[in-house]
Amino acid sequence: MVYELIIIGAGPAGITAAIYAARKRLNFLVITRVIGGQLMNNAFIENYTGYQEISGAELVSKFEEHLKEFKFDLEMDEVINISIKNDIFQVRTKSNDFKSKTLIIAAGTSPRKLNVKGEEEFLNRGVTYCATCDGPLFLEKDVAIIGGGNSAFETAIQLMAIANKIYMIDIAEDLIGDKILIDKVRAHAKVEIFSSSSLKAIKGDKFVEKIEFEQKGQIKIKNVQGVFIEIGYIPQTSIFKDLVELNAKDEIITDRFKKTSRPGVFAAGDCTDIPFKQIIISGGEGAVAALSAFQFLSKI
Amino acid sequence: MVYELIIIGAGPAGITAAIYAARKRLNFLVITRVIGGQLMNNAFIENYTGYQEISGAELVSKFEEHLKEFKFDLEMDEVINISIKNDIFQVRTKSNDFKSKTLIIAAGTSPRKLNVKGEEEFLNRGVTYCATCDGPLFLEKDVAIIGGGNSAFETAIQLMAIANKIYMIDIAEDLIGDKILIDKVRAHAKVEIFSSSSLKAIKGDKFVEKIEFEQKGQIKIKNVQGVFIEIGYIPQTSIFKDLVELNAKDEIITDRFKKTSRPGVFAAGDCTDIPFKQIIISGGEGAVAALSAFQFLSKI
Repeated sequence: MVYELIIIGAGPAGITAAIYAARKRLNFLVITRVIGGQLMNNAFIENYTGYQEISGAELVSKFEEHLKEFKFDLEMDEVINISIKNDIFQVRTKSNDFKSKTLIIAAGTSPRKLNVKGEEEFLNRGVTYCATCDGPLFLEKDVAIIGGGNSAFETAIQLMAIANKIYMIDIAEDLIGDKILIDKVRAHAKVEIFSSSSLKAIKGDKFVEKIEFEQKGQIKIKNVQGVFIEIGYIPQTSIFKDLVELNAKDEIITDRFKKTSRPGVFAAGDCTDIPFKQIIISGGEGAVAALSAFQFLSKI
Repeated sequence: MVYELIIIGAGPAGITAAIYAARKRLNFLVITRVIGGQLMNNAFIENYTGYQEISGAELVSKFEEHLKEFKFDLEMDEVINISIKNDIFQVRTKSNDFKSKTLIIAAGTSPRKLNVKGEEEFLNRGVTYCATCDGPLFLEKDVAIIGGGNSAFETAIQLMAIANKIYMIDIAEDLIGDKILIDKVRAHAKVEIFSSSSLKAIKGDKFVEKIEFEQKGQIKIKNVQGVFIEIGYIPQTSIFKDLVELNAKDEIITDRFKKTSRPGVFAAGDCTDIPFKQIIISGGEGAVAALSAFQFLSKI
């Protein structure tokens, strides 16, 4: 059996692509390890038009409900290889093989590592990449957040209600998050912000006990029990590198119709080279990719 | 007073741009005649990710609620002229003048006219461009829908519960709407579809009484009391034509960052040259335009 379309990933881009593909009555398959993608890590979302404030998990459940209306195949698995034979894409997962005439890659991103001493050793012993998942473990504790973008500030806002003291360690000179978030965090008594600062080591015995960081040539030490690393994301594109062109950041190069360098392969959302990684932007891109795939299919 | 940003229009693109501008704490103004744009004409929306089925009016009210969280200026008026003086945009409305460093044009579209005999004469006497507004007036009546795209089929689905008989008159040979909509309409006993057919005249005395159309050289006449014209939309861009480049369809030419040909002017949504006119796509574009405007402002 050859599908008309396989969608890889089910974050905001993949889910919206699926809604549009279903409405076009395409015969398609969605392959994903998890429904919702990075959304699941968002404690609160205030910039998805139509919902004033909603948690990532809630928005995912809204997306899932929306998807359930439609008929399509869903495979909860990981894609490990893609090849091409007679213009048909052969998609191999850990446990199966599938064929399709077109692909939409909406594989998203995963958290970027800091690569400092102690980061791996203390993973899940104080070091975490998911404030939503692990924040509640740090009630009345002192914590550090590494990073200075929106996700660092969102983490701080979450932790303000939980932690005792919050140190924000940011390598940049100026904070780059949304001003509305920065203002909220700056005004809060629990928070202390260290700009132009780079983390050197995470130390402890069994669990995290302190961090060492350098600010303008000076080494500083703070006692913390938790370290939240929020320094961005890596596109999940390594298995697609022979299929489509990537840019220097390993993002899939797309045009405005979300076409990739390979005819029949489209890509949408955070794994692509759009510089703004936002839920509603990914959603819009998923719709564009599905409509482009539909146009492609109607011409073959 | 010079605003950092003026957003023209408040459909899905303009509203989402406003949400993003507000979160960046920009000092901005929204100028619009109506909140919601063309959305208000949608009886039901099933493809806005996160809402399984919602009416246009309801989705607009969700958008409005979302907007109310934020502080910004709102001017319910129409822009009639834009000029530039010392790199500052001078925006004139019917009753005021405003200044801004950047603009986002999200002016949307308005319904396209058929330009046939009787169309103007019987406007609001049976001829309508808004099924949501006027559909309920045609209870147990016979009606014609002119057009073959999604909005024509959505109109048909709305009218299936109201009208007695529905003739769909489409100029194309093949229907181009979403298959899910086409299938619903085709299966319905009340509906008769005439493809490759062009409307020639709308006739009546005080109110619409019949239509004349030509199908493959043959003139046909149907008695109807209502004529719903759903043949697409015209971008509302005429007042911007000296400010930014338009394409042959009068759409504003934009790049993937929603930049126009004029530095500092961004455009988003249905008035731009993205071929897919969809709520979630417009929303995503509004976010991109606002983030691009923010980047532009941070460099001047």
